[in-house]
Amino acid sequence: MTPHSGSPECEYSVRPIGSVRSPLRSPADAPKQGSEGAPDAWIDVHEQHVEGLQGLRPGQEVVVITWLHQARRDLLRVHPRDDRTAPLAGVFATRSADRPNPLGLHPVTILQIDGRHLEVGPLEALDGTPVLDIKPVLSRER
Amino acid sequence: MTPHSGSPECEYSVRPIGSVRSPLRSPADAPKQGSEGAPDAWIDVHEQHVEGLQGLRPGQEVVVITWLHQARRDLLRVHPRDDRTAPLAGVFATRSADRPNPLGLHPVTILQIDGRHLEVGPLEALDGTPVLDIKPVLSRER
Repeated sequence: MTPHSGSPECEYSVRPIGSVRSPLRSPADAPKQGSEGAPDAWIDVHEQHVEGLQGLRPGQEVVVITWLHQARRDLLRVHPRDDRTAPLAGVFATRSADRPNPLGLHPVTILQIDGRHLEVGPLEALDGTPVLDIKPVLSRER
Repeated sequence: MTPHSGSPECEYSVRPIGSVRSPLRSPADAPKQGSEGAPDAWIDVHEQHVEGLQGLRPGQEVVVITWLHQARRDLLRVHPRDDRTAPLAGVFATRSADRPNPLGLHPVTILQIDGRHLEVGPLEALDGTPVLDIKPVLSRER
């Protein structure tokens, strides 16, 4: 019997559509969030996905979704912001990179587009981080 | 040689941490975005991930990340909002479900928490949609 689409036995595979090129080389250098002094960076989109960029333009706000490949996937509780004096919190109540599916969400502005290369910022992701998706930002009204 | 973390040959696997329980049963019923009249819905978090919810509370705004398991992954250009009179746009310039890694981002408010079950809204995801992650919303200042 095929497991239900959302069951814990299901597994789906993601593949990078590009990767981050950044002066940030180690987690020690990286701010926790883009708004905390992160640099601008480039996203190098793979050749086979370049057609998907059509319609993006400088000045636009987008969300970049990354795969935080250096994260731990076996933690369900963490000390927020790596502060070991802070009480443990569930990973879904934090933005910790350590979580079962280590997806990073980065709201950035597109600064320039050069073919398949997008300059964006501010971006706290490390150099070499896989990029899984880029989406335009929608405002939320309820 | 191991491929570079962000190279197109790399593949990472994601597993649902839960799934959506919603009155929305077919794509024809679903609004394009949560703000367009989507109903409230439940997220049933799997037993093994319940510890990760610690610290979440009703009233909080979170982003739910889903896996849009019914989407097409082979499209790089689409007609925005399924309007076939609209010019084709790159999928990364749209919020189309059809994209190489069909990740859905849903900003919602937590309405109530009952053990491993979270009522959230508004949520345009279909019943049975796998949930990959839940993250608190950060305001962005640049």
